[in-house]
Amino acid sequence: MVQPYADKQIKLFSLTGNQAIAEKISKAAGIPLGKVSSRQFSDGEIQINIEESVRGVDVYVIQSTSYPVNDHLWELLIMVDACIRASANSVTVVMPYFGYARQDRTAAPREPITAKLVANMLVKAGVTRVVTLDLHAVQVQGFFDIPVDNLFTVPLFADYYARKGLVGDDVVIVSPKNSGIKRARGLAESLNAPIAIIDYAQDDSEREEGYIIGNVAGKKAILIDDIINTGKTFSEASKIVQNNGATDIYAVASHGLFAGKATQLLDAAPIQEILVTDSVDSKEQLPKNIQFLSASELIADAIIRIHERRPVSPLFNATIHLDKK
Amino acid sequence: MVQPYADKQIKLFSLTGNQAIAEKISKAAGIPLGKVSSRQFSDGEIQINIEESVRGVDVYVIQSTSYPVNDHLWELLIMVDACIRASANSVTVVMPYFGYARQDRTAAPREPITAKLVANMLVKAGVTRVVTLDLHAVQVQGFFDIPVDNLFTVPLFADYYARKGLVGDDVVIVSPKNSGIKRARGLAESLNAPIAIIDYAQDDSEREEGYIIGNVAGKKAILIDDIINTGKTFSEASKIVQNNGATDIYAVASHGLFAGKATQLLDAAPIQEILVTDSVDSKEQLPKNIQFLSASELIADAIIRIHERRPVSPLFNATIHLDKK
Amino acid sequence: MVQPYADKQIKLFSLTGNQAIAEKISKAAGIPLGKVSSRQFSDGEIQINIEESVRGVDVYVIQSTSYPVNDHLWELLIMVDACIRASANSVTVVMPYFGYARQDRTAAPREPITAKLVANMLVKAGVTRVVTLDLHAVQVQGFFDIPVDNLFTVPLFADYYARKGLVGDDVVIVSPKNSGIKRARGLAESLNAPIAIIDYAQDDSEREEGYIIGNVAGKKAILIDDIINTGKTFSEASKIVQNNGATDIYAVASHGLFAGKATQLLDAAPIQEILVTDSVDSKEQLPKNIQFLSASELIADAIIRIHERRPVSPLFNATIHLDKK
Amino acid sequence: MVQPYADKQIKLFSLTGNQAIAEKISKAAGIPLGKVSSRQFSDGEIQINIEESVRGVDVYVIQSTSYPVNDHLWELLIMVDACIRASANSVTVVMPYFGYARQDRTAAPREPITAKLVANMLVKAGVTRVVTLDLHAVQVQGFFDIPVDNLFTVPLFADYYARKGLVGDDVVIVSPKNSGIKRARGLAESLNAPIAIIDYAQDDSEREEGYIIGNVAGKKAILIDDIINTGKTFSEASKIVQNNGATDIYAVASHGLFAGKATQLLDAAPIQEILVTDSVDSKEQLPKNIQFLSASELIADAIIRIHERRPVSPLFNATIHLDKK
Amino acid sequence: MVQPYADKQIKLFSLTGNQAIAEKISKAAGIPLGKVSSRQFSDGEIQINIEESVRGVDVYVIQSTSYPVNDHLWELLIMVDACIRASANSVTVVMPYFGYARQDRTAAPREPITAKLVANMLVKAGVTRVVTLDLHAVQVQGFFDIPVDNLFTVPLFADYYARKGLVGDDVVIVSPKNSGIKRARGLAESLNAPIAIIDYAQDDSEREEGYIIGNVAGKKAILIDDIINTGKTFSEASKIVQNNGATDIYAVASHGLFAGKATQLLDAAPIQEILVTDSVDSKEQLPKNIQFLSASELIADAIIRIHERRPVSPLFNATIHLDKK
Amino acid sequence: MVQPYADKQIKLFSLTGNQAIAEKISKAAGIPLGKVSSRQFSDGEIQINIEESVRGVDVYVIQSTSYPVNDHLWELLIMVDACIRASANSVTVVMPYFGYARQDRTAAPREPITAKLVANMLVKAGVTRVVTLDLHAVQVQGFFDIPVDNLFTVPLFADYYARKGLVGDDVVIVSPKNSGIKRARGLAESLNAPIAIIDYAQDDSEREEGYIIGNVAGKKAILIDDIINTGKTFSEASKIVQNNGATDIYAVASHGLFAGKATQLLDAAPIQEILVTDSVDSKEQLPKNIQFLSASELIADAIIRIHERRPVSPLFNATIHLDKK
Repeated sequence: MVQPYADKQIKLFSLTGNQAIAEKISKAAGIPLGKVSSRQFSDGEIQINIEESVRGVDVYVIQSTSYPVNDHLWELLIMVDACIRASANSVTVVMPYFGYARQDRTAAPREPITAKLVANMLVKAGVTRVVTLDLHAVQVQGFFDIPVDNLFTVPLFADYYARKGLVGDDVVIVSPKNSGIKRARGLAESLNAPIAIIDYAQDDSEREEGYIIGNVAGKKAILIDDIINTGKTFSEASKIVQNNGATDIYAVASHGLFAGKATQLLDAAPIQEILVTDSVDSKEQLPKNIQFLSASELIADAIIRIHERRPVSPLFNATIHLDKK
Repeated sequence: MVQPYADKQIKLFSLTGNQAIAEKISKAAGIPLGKVSSRQFSDGEIQINIEESVRGVDVYVIQSTSYPVNDHLWELLIMVDACIRASANSVTVVMPYFGYARQDRTAAPREPITAKLVANMLVKAGVTRVVTLDLHAVQVQGFFDIPVDNLFTVPLFADYYARKGLVGDDVVIVSPKNSGIKRARGLAESLNAPIAIIDYAQDDSEREEGYIIGNVAGKKAILIDDIINTGKTFSEASKIVQNNGATDIYAVASHGLFAGKATQLLDAAPIQEILVTDSVDSKEQLPKNIQFLSASELIADAIIRIHERRPVSPLFNATIHLDKK
Repeated sequence: MVQPYADKQIKLFSLTGNQAIAEKISKAAGIPLGKVSSRQFSDGEIQINIEESVRGVDVYVIQSTSYPVNDHLWELLIMVDACIRASANSVTVVMPYFGYARQDRTAAPREPITAKLVANMLVKAGVTRVVTLDLHAVQVQGFFDIPVDNLFTVPLFADYYARKGLVGDDVVIVSPKNSGIKRARGLAESLNAPIAIIDYAQDDSEREEGYIIGNVAGKKAILIDDIINTGKTFSEASKIVQNNGATDIYAVASHGLFAGKATQLLDAAPIQEILVTDSVDSKEQLPKNIQFLSASELIADAIIRIHERRPVSPLFNATIHLDKK
Repeated sequence: MVQPYADKQIKLFSLTGNQAIAEKISKAAGIPLGKVSSRQFSDGEIQINIEESVRGVDVYVIQSTSYPVNDHLWELLIMVDACIRASANSVTVVMPYFGYARQDRTAAPREPITAKLVANMLVKAGVTRVVTLDLHAVQVQGFFDIPVDNLFTVPLFADYYARKGLVGDDVVIVSPKNSGIKRARGLAESLNAPIAIIDYAQDDSEREEGYIIGNVAGKKAILIDDIINTGKTFSEASKIVQNNGATDIYAVASHGLFAGKATQLLDAAPIQEILVTDSVDSKEQLPKNIQFLSASELIADAIIRIHERRPVSPLFNATIHLDKK
Repeated sequence: MVQPYADKQIKLFSLTGNQAIAEKISKAAGIPLGKVSSRQFSDGEIQINIEESVRGVDVYVIQSTSYPVNDHLWELLIMVDACIRASANSVTVVMPYFGYARQDRTAAPREPITAKLVANMLVKAGVTRVVTLDLHAVQVQGFFDIPVDNLFTVPLFADYYARKGLVGDDVVIVSPKNSGIKRARGLAESLNAPIAIIDYAQDDSEREEGYIIGNVAGKKAILIDDIINTGKTFSEASKIVQNNGATDIYAVASHGLFAGKATQLLDAAPIQEILVTDSVDSKEQLPKNIQFLSASELIADAIIRIHERRPVSPLFNATIHLDKK
Repeated sequence: MVQPYADKQIKLFSLTGNQAIAEKISKAAGIPLGKVSSRQFSDGEIQINIEESVRGVDVYVIQSTSYPVNDHLWELLIMVDACIRASANSVTVVMPYFGYARQDRTAAPREPITAKLVANMLVKAGVTRVVTLDLHAVQVQGFFDIPVDNLFTVPLFADYYARKGLVGDDVVIVSPKNSGIKRARGLAESLNAPIAIIDYAQDDSEREEGYIIGNVAGKKAILIDDIINTGKTFSEASKIVQNNGATDIYAVASHGLFAGKATQLLDAAPIQEILVTDSVDSKEQLPKNIQFLSASELIADAIIRIHERRPVSPLFNATIHLDKK
């Protein structure tokens, strides 16, 4: 058990997005969760009341903006407004899952860039810093002019698979679509493995039939993506990889939403194990072969470092442990 | 039927908050509703695509931010972002019902002022003007630095009751709580009637037992409020008024949410007729004696006047028709 | 006598709006007033020179923006500009009286919302926090996005009248116009008394003949409003209350401007005692039966709490002392 | 008489700072002054009501911010707020005299830069453009990020003196202090005359005894400054120039405030004629040998050019008339 | 020859970044280039003078921010400042090449996001719209809250290669690094060809030895990237592709900088033809087998569409011409 | 040698503009220069990497924005962006030479105000304070709303000349153009000497033939200006002063750029000694009779005072030492 954190200048609060991870972060950091009441009325409106003083305090609000994303975002904005008006010294939002991050460009004419809109709303409400986990696109950091600490999950995953012996040329890291190669490249580097890519003739959103680029035959394949939403991407990729001769198939993603029929699809797919962090507290049924890796210690470490004005950068290189094995 | 409006410089769009009133406004203005696709995915995220050019156009987006208010607000913000990025010349949001308007002050320590937050979010997203209907508190106009046209419903109601013959000293206008007197005063002036007030010993939000200030015995009482939410305010007020000898009891409010058990409560209350506008498209079961008065022509008139740079102020004095009767 | 306050990180300055209350606040807080020179030249321009260093200091500027309000506001804005350029760490404006607060909505077409304008000017000049006393409408807090501590005077008044024995059903709290009921309701709760209201058939600004709603016969009436300006509201209300049988009539308001012929009117009215705080340093002749209750200790307490990052909220419940009597 | 201006898209309004010049500008432009009511109450607060629609209109508000400068500035800010909320298309402030312009730098430690504060307040209130006349320092233009048209008066003065035959080497243009040489240089160039300067051993603000640099003996001297405030600068300069042998002494300034004992001082000084524009409507007694040159046509011309999107720059070279003589 | 464009409300100006493309755009649009003087003094400072009125005009400033990028950016910012102060109605910057776009994320701790900085500087200077060509990452659009039209070059390239008969399965589109796959995917779709990728075991910036993923043997390979800077990426990729059996090798990029020894490297590489647009006016020696495809008509078309409030979106689908061949 | 400064809350960094003065400031302050890598690539883009943590630190970035000014400004802006994103507590830019300061007004129609643009860019990038040396015009301070400490060099120069015995009526301080008199006046006051001015019949920028106003015959003349750029101003002034009988001629300026043929011109001029500070690290050949006076101690003193929240104002009166001699 971690010692209680002595400095009372910092307070953590959890909203309703993912209280499970908030409690783990609180424990790992040695800082109790502050009291805040958040009620939703019959007309859908949320009312927040912070039940202890935050005057002059550095407030950290933990909120995953997963389903129902709009409620969770408004709850977060309202909490930030309350903190600012109650004279908090600073307001850091800790978003283990950053909803709407995939809407980061105008893919078609007259589309919004909702990820930028979310960034603008947070900043206008008074947020002074963001801590998040494996953003869909790293460019989203640039949607903010306040500091954003985007923690990486690849080192966690690399560490996990290395412990399992999944390293070297017998392994192949597969990007299940042609837009997420950087993540596959990162994991491959840590595990000294080659990469392969699933390509689709059409744009990802309307694809029909994929094919593999690169060699997976006779290898243990690890599919990697940032988000498991409907499960379709992993489900299809696993079949293609299987058809191309992979011996074992693993799947890993930072954020597990498991929306709609995701679990049904994934349970039917030839995937041995699905690894995700606990960034999302999904209320859906989960795949039977799911495995969770908690990001809470990583986040707690980041919070303490930020508060103590120590660099967060060492957390980006967590794979240095790996070299010793 | 209204003639099609010739000027193509203006476009109306409806989001999903209240498509019924949007269609009526569109008809009354002679301007067809533009094509916009708004989908909500299984993870709760909303995706907007405007399906016709808005480049250089003055866009009016009609959205009632009633239940589910957080979804409707995000849908609105995302639409505004899309309009701005698609080079709309201006973006007016038409909000027949303005959600969160009641959270307009810090009632208790460390509370947010969510109505101001909503105002800030709208402006930051790019809104250039707001048209709304009977704001809970007129001071909310001052939460914006852009023009806000807050249309009044009292003239509509006065006209309605005057046609029914509910005028003069036989009638009493009753404010069902001590914070809404201005609205009662306004209706009373138009109907040449006195007013009365229901007072509660405690603050409105925790009240137990109310009593009447003023005289209702032998009179036809019209209870007036801005919002019918849970129905409790009108239900209790009608009983107090009945106990104090009112002969007939009417209730009128600008916005009918009818959340939770409102209809059950109101059907059990001694209210002869409940009058509301169509500002809210409630999905709840409605009271049996409900009567709707459409605000669509008033809103359409305002939109056309704004677009033609003619004053909107004449709409604030609509009761001048009354004198002729 | 209060001990000198040890922390030199805080400095108080008084401008010319109300030096009397500034000196009392300074004494109560144990913090001397800093040296600042403010001169007005023959062409009306004000020149400020801060005569001691404020670099890195938390500055509190005390200024009541009463008559001449425009001079006092510019003096305040210029002082704030000087503080910011001289590298103050923060600038809190302490406004015992907040001028222009009544212009908080567009009452007629094409009117400004001057209270919002004042808020915007203060913030743009560099103000980081506002401390004020009994704002005309609590919604004015929402005109700011910086923290606003709006201190309440009702607890002070309740305490005063309770000491006088003015409690319970023999007393009635009267709102002298139909827009200030909340204030009457608040005092009534503290004194366990009922309320009554003076209503006018026309809008408050053009009213002719008022009448009472509620029962005052045989009771001691306390008229309550936020501001005594021309004295007309209290003068008329006192006559109506007298005509309706009240036995003793008291009047209380947070801010006593006594502009124009106010004193003449009030001296002629059947009011036994007029109670105000010292928020305004009126240069006019004062009514003969005036009584002052200083708000300086309340304000000093708030300043110290803010500076020490302790909650200000306990000051909002000052009536808890009352229960003990 | 000028023809009425046909385009109704533009409206002129005058506040109370200098209605005389506003009427002349109105006549010269052929645009009637719009109806606006501006009242000041007994508590000093100003209430503005614009009495005709400005929706979609390009509004020009004429206001000289001379004594009482703080009232005139607030009147202007409130008017701008009203215009913005009433949906004006743009708000240009026309300030023939720009008060506080001399406070354009921190002359001593911890002084404000009030001219920048005024600029910030105007812009924050919603001003979209400024038209002014002979700013104390041209750098004040850079205090704004909106367009500022700073009209020059030197061409008007040059034209006036050239008509009088005051040209060439018999004339000398004298800067009465060492900070206004550019203005003297400008007039000298137009009149083909040399310049001289009055220098003071101490800083201008605390000077005791001045002396002349340059030659004035046997010449007709024209003293030039931007503002006549207390009259002391011209009074002293004229004596020095006289003592150094000047034959005739003229004085010219763009803005005549004549504050305090200015007229008394100037009437006693050896100045033949004092020339000013009508930018300030001074309520003080004026010197007996004063001569006014109206800036109204210049300003009207600028307004029309701005409205018609024609360049204002030709107005900067008005001295081209001079060549013809 | 295009007809002169009738509407004088629009003006084009070219700065010194790429006058050649500016002249072509001017011709294609039928709008002459406005007169602007831009001088650089011996101390390196740039002075801009716009030599014709832009009052009320929609200004389009054409500037490629290629080498020397810092001079070109300041020249652009200064021009924008001049336009705003000279009362331009709007200022669109047309940047055929957007310098610093690759610095779009914090790749290492404590790095800036210079592309966002550039965006912020442009907007703060007064830019109201951006037109650019094939941004390095589409997310950079989200660095702005003003409209950004990011024109695509892939349709131009697809059209060019289709005319050459480079379509179908005999062709393979190769991304020369693992971060630019989307561009390769786009060209592949238009040409009905498969894709391949060059992967490097280390991060792109420190890579040593690459290998191919996918099949190029016996095919005509088209290498595609957004920028040719040092030439190293294409040089290495062409060798790898050659070693893997490609028969013919083409290279295409939107922007040809050819910095340092690029031409030397590329002339030595097994590349049959290097295709670029004229977005950059490189002063370096160019490769002997270079081919230019002008983007000027595409840009001119976009400018006219924007000015006429017609949708720009059809320009995004220019490949529809391809089907007819 | 100065003791190492104990407080680690402050860090100094030097960019490439003037590393020599940065090292002297560092020594004088006892604070080592932090590690930062700044590289310029072959395409002209600058990449900054801060190589030590600045989280929570008060960062002071030393950069003279002299030639090449555009590179130096971008380097500075990029560094500021990096500091903000790396969570610096504050970012003070220390600019011994402030480039573009002379473009502080619109001298001709449609000119920019580049000094204001530079100010806006710095603030938008995140700068929280500016320390600079002898700004061309003091009004440039007002281009910022953040604190600006403009250190004066005249006391340094006065001290230097006083030590040389250049005091009293045998000396004359000469402004070499009619726009810099204030600086001459300041030095004259410290040395108890009279002043004289070189005037040109045309505007400074196009002058042909100058003449002197005031008396220099038989006196030792000190020419003073803020910047030596092309050397032409001093070269011409020295000849005029010589022709009017000055016995010895000195020249002094705060900033020595020596651009183009400045040294050639100055070496040929009758100037005995040219005195400048080390604010600019000119790469040009320097005049043979140049003398440097380091501003590093003055700047170091200011930095320490700012950091320790002590007033900087004593540095403005450094000439008080003079009286004792």
